[in-house]
Amino acid sequence: MAQLRIALAQTNPVVGDITGNAEMLVEWTRRAAERNAHLVAFPEMFLTGYPPEDLVLRSSFVEASTSALTAAAERLAAEGLGDLPVIVGYLDRAGLTPRVGQPKGAPLDAAALLHRGRVITKSAKHHLPNYGVFDEHRYFVRGDRLPIFRLHGIDVAVAICEDLWQDGGPVSVVGEVGAGLLVVLNGSPYEMNKDDVRLELCARRAREAGCTIAYVNLVGGQDELVFDGDSLIVSPTGELIARAAQFTEELLVADLDLPEGTGEPGEVRVDARDGTVITVERFTISAEPVAPYEPEPARIAERLDDLAEVYQALVLGTRDYVTKNGFRSVILGLSGGIDSALTATIAVDALGPSRVHAVLMPSRYSSEHSIIDAEELVRRQGINAVTVPITGIMEAFEKEISLHGLAAENLQARIRGMILMSLSNEHGHLVLTTGNKSELATGYSTLYGDSAGGFAPIKDVLKTMVWRLAEWRNAQPPGPPPIPENSITKEPSAELRPGQRDTDSLPPYHVLDPLLRDYVERDMGRDELIAAGHDPELVTRVIRMVDRAEYKRRQYPPGPKITPKNFGRDRRLPLTNRWRERLA
Amino acid sequence: MAQLRIALAQTNPVVGDITGNAEMLVEWTRRAAERNAHLVAFPEMFLTGYPPEDLVLRSSFVEASTSALTAAAERLAAEGLGDLPVIVGYLDRAGLTPRVGQPKGAPLDAAALLHRGRVITKSAKHHLPNYGVFDEHRYFVRGDRLPIFRLHGIDVAVAICEDLWQDGGPVSVVGEVGAGLLVVLNGSPYEMNKDDVRLELCARRAREAGCTIAYVNLVGGQDELVFDGDSLIVSPTGELIARAAQFTEELLVADLDLPEGTGEPGEVRVDARDGTVITVERFTISAEPVAPYEPEPARIAERLDDLAEVYQALVLGTRDYVTKNGFRSVILGLSGGIDSALTATIAVDALGPSRVHAVLMPSRYSSEHSIIDAEELVRRQGINAVTVPITGIMEAFEKEISLHGLAAENLQARIRGMILMSLSNEHGHLVLTTGNKSELATGYSTLYGDSAGGFAPIKDVLKTMVWRLAEWRNAQPPGPPPIPENSITKEPSAELRPGQRDTDSLPPYHVLDPLLRDYVERDMGRDELIAAGHDPELVTRVIRMVDRAEYKRRQYPPGPKITPKNFGRDRRLPLTNRWRERLA
Repeated sequence: MAQLRIALAQTNPVVGDITGNAEMLVEWTRRAAERNAHLVAFPEMFLTGYPPEDLVLRSSFVEASTSALTAAAERLAAEGLGDLPVIVGYLDRAGLTPRVGQPKGAPLDAAALLHRGRVITKSAKHHLPNYGVFDEHRYFVRGDRLPIFRLHGIDVAVAICEDLWQDGGPVSVVGEVGAGLLVVLNGSPYEMNKDDVRLELCARRAREAGCTIAYVNLVGGQDELVFDGDSLIVSPTGELIARAAQFTEELLVADLDLPEGTGEPGEVRVDARDGTVITVERFTISAEPVAPYEPEPARIAERLDDLAEVYQALVLGTRDYVTKNGFRSVILGLSGGIDSALTATIAVDALGPSRVHAVLMPSRYSSEHSIIDAEELVRRQGINAVTVPITGIMEAFEKEISLHGLAAENLQARIRGMILMSLSNEHGHLVLTTGNKSELATGYSTLYGDSAGGFAPIKDVLKTMVWRLAEWRNAQPPGPPPIPENSITKEPSAELRPGQRDTDSLPPYHVLDPLLRDYVERDMGRDELIAAGHDPELVTRVIRMVDRAEYKRRQYPPGPKITPKNFGRDRRLPLTNRWRERLA
Repeated sequence: MAQLRIALAQTNPVVGDITGNAEMLVEWTRRAAERNAHLVAFPEMFLTGYPPEDLVLRSSFVEASTSALTAAAERLAAEGLGDLPVIVGYLDRAGLTPRVGQPKGAPLDAAALLHRGRVITKSAKHHLPNYGVFDEHRYFVRGDRLPIFRLHGIDVAVAICEDLWQDGGPVSVVGEVGAGLLVVLNGSPYEMNKDDVRLELCARRAREAGCTIAYVNLVGGQDELVFDGDSLIVSPTGELIARAAQFTEELLVADLDLPEGTGEPGEVRVDARDGTVITVERFTISAEPVAPYEPEPARIAERLDDLAEVYQALVLGTRDYVTKNGFRSVILGLSGGIDSALTATIAVDALGPSRVHAVLMPSRYSSEHSIIDAEELVRRQGINAVTVPITGIMEAFEKEISLHGLAAENLQARIRGMILMSLSNEHGHLVLTTGNKSELATGYSTLYGDSAGGFAPIKDVLKTMVWRLAEWRNAQPPGPPPIPENSITKEPSAELRPGQRDTDSLPPYHVLDPLLRDYVERDMGRDELIAAGHDPELVTRVIRMVDRAEYKRRQYPPGPKITPKNFGRDRRLPLTNRWRERLA
């Protein structure tokens, strides 16, 4: 057996900021060196940020990535960090002849080993995910090389993200040819409870590969995706050795005791058991084990409970969207209801109260408690607030056009949306929308009204979860509860006409939400929904609402994703569509 | 040699309307029978409409498709049409064991042969496109069967759309095993000049397959896609034999003289020269050639010229979006400028003047000619119009919030957007937006202002093309020019402040548009753009504008697509993105 101290750099790069990410590479490599690590690994596509989407089809972007890689290797050496081998994800190209259907430039989701000022080896992701939020058959061509390098006597193999999720490919090949450690670079987005799935997966693949697996993941928000970190190391028998925290940057350092490598240097082609052949490339960096040393105890960070996990995902997703897009502050409408109260609280936790601006926009239908509850939240959290009454503006519209029913209700929501957008344009705040997933799914919102804005922190949060998160947040120390209790307990109303209640238009949320979960997240059809115990009439009604609301959802701002299937890129339905579940 | 009269049903099904599409199948099969055709072919995914996107992941939808197929075969026989063989595209499933990355239910983009009340054979698309507007690795698994059936002595093979575009696969196999006719079912969307590419492709593949190719395409609008029809037949040497019109339904009937088949019935596995193996399934429907008859001369429809082609695509895309979504009428703001004038004209050509409602919304900055030109268009085309002045509403806002510069300009655009949306809600018209691609690309538009609406007829039309289309349309007989000449010739202005001109914010359109074409449609980076002859400073400025406008474009309504690369699904860029071409 031989010892190895590995450092996993669970980091938060910015898509497109190749220069900044390269700086971060040097900084975190230095931290790893200061911890006397023998090897440091960065996540998937670290140099470019992930996912860079159609940027990978621009040759200028690919060239910037590959140049930055070479420069980073030299820079590390120049900074005295060249002796520490670095595994890092970046964007490369395969140099294939163009053909129909092959992404322009044949890009690769690549990994490189940097050592002593040089790029020692390059490989690329073998399995390309093309489901859910992933479009990688659009972007990449397949890698078919598996590097295994001997470092201090240990054989270290490298794979990337999806290579772990699918059968066959690099894991199968490692199982066949043998290695002491498989380092996997990941860009694995958060979903509720995914940490459990991930640990189980790593354990299973470690047993299959017959070696320790070190799994390093991104952390941070990127549009609708939130990367949760949760980097971890499992033993060949699947036992958890080390684990980083969720939703925060961390250098996870662990001392591993690994078998000494025995494979011969050189190349060998191996059946990857997925219909392809992978070329294993073995070479040696250092054959001798390190002198024995006293290992440090490995850290196994505690898991957050389920609500804390969701809340942190929303906070991180909101913070990164705002700051990575160059905004310093946000603005939102505060109605006194629970959705805007929770959204404001998330914004304060993400950015601090001084960067959060609330606008109270009472109309002739606003109840007294709405204003009181909104003012109470402003007071408790110390955010900025102004009041802009909308009655005069409503009257000016009513003088020019005659509106009734829903059209008149929508007008109020749109006046509020315009005021927020106007103040955003005037002062440079990003507008946060406050709609939740239950509203959004059923179309219970106004296009260009409450849906107007740049980011939607709770767009993937069902209403019943909104209440649970509010209660959870109020129970957290330190300090008094940030959300007025009345905002949590009162009956939901849009207050767009006298005495309006959400239940005038929607089923009660405790009935609606489980049905939405089954229809939206699980893609069940009508018969399946009824078989699952949902009321047949309600199924018909809700399917009709959800399918009709498709257009509104397409126009909705992005927001942190916390469920496996939401709308937009996760669930693409044609707008022009007469499928009967839509018209039921 | 043996004779065969083939009918290609260039038709316009509706996505999801399986019942309606099955009715259309019977109706067009009857027409083919009345023309004494020996074989009739319908386009790709005809029964479900195309592309059905994530509907294919619902088992209820797949089951509806396969049941409808069986029922259609029986129905055709019951209607006395059973003797005419029908090839039709539909949705099926492969029945594979679920695994990570495989689309749920393993759907197939399938083709079936219906004859005498039964489904005789089934096959599925082999090559799955996953570029541009296509996401088929997300939706389908690959087919690996090639049916070749003998009909009146002729061997007829069946393939689907992308099978023609990529090397290897069904075409290669037909070339190897031999057939007299290859029928290809297509869902091939329109792009400018694609008809030339398509003819050249069919000719090349016919030579490769060594047989006649009959290419049947969809026609009609589906969200942003417009299928242009253009069904055609080419001889084994690549000569054009018959061709249907563009942008209209048509039964293309042609008498072919084809070699008699010699292959033995049964199954044989053939290397498809793309790394896969395809099973050829040969069987006989009727071995005897038909009695010799006098062939009818084949129709070769004339091609539209380039501007006519684009204009028809816009009209068809607009008409089908409106009517397939159940709207009866549209509403739009009429400013007196060329964009709203062209949009109104397209709407009138799509729907007729009585279904088009214009709103004139003058502000304190509107010039006199704007109102005159708008009124003149209303008069010439006989559309409905109302005038809603916005000055009073502007003043009501100004009383409550203080706005300057861009924020004040945006307010006016948003008031107009709200008025249109309010009237849409009140009266049930679909709002058409009037923005062109040059504005949209550079962000020269107001989010929730002029971008508010349900459909954007000219969103993929650069400003210089807007002018050319207006002049072209004005030159068409019969009747006087629909667009006031002054709307075409005057200098473009948003009229949101006194004396404003587009060139205050944008380069002249004759300079801007070629640059947009290279940057947006060809994905060139900065260095390539400069090398292509664009002014370096302008390149920097325009790249910055285009990259910054990404969020607005995401929020923009769909509109007919006429170029190979536009925004959204064609060109996906992260919103959170610090790539230097963005920040240049």
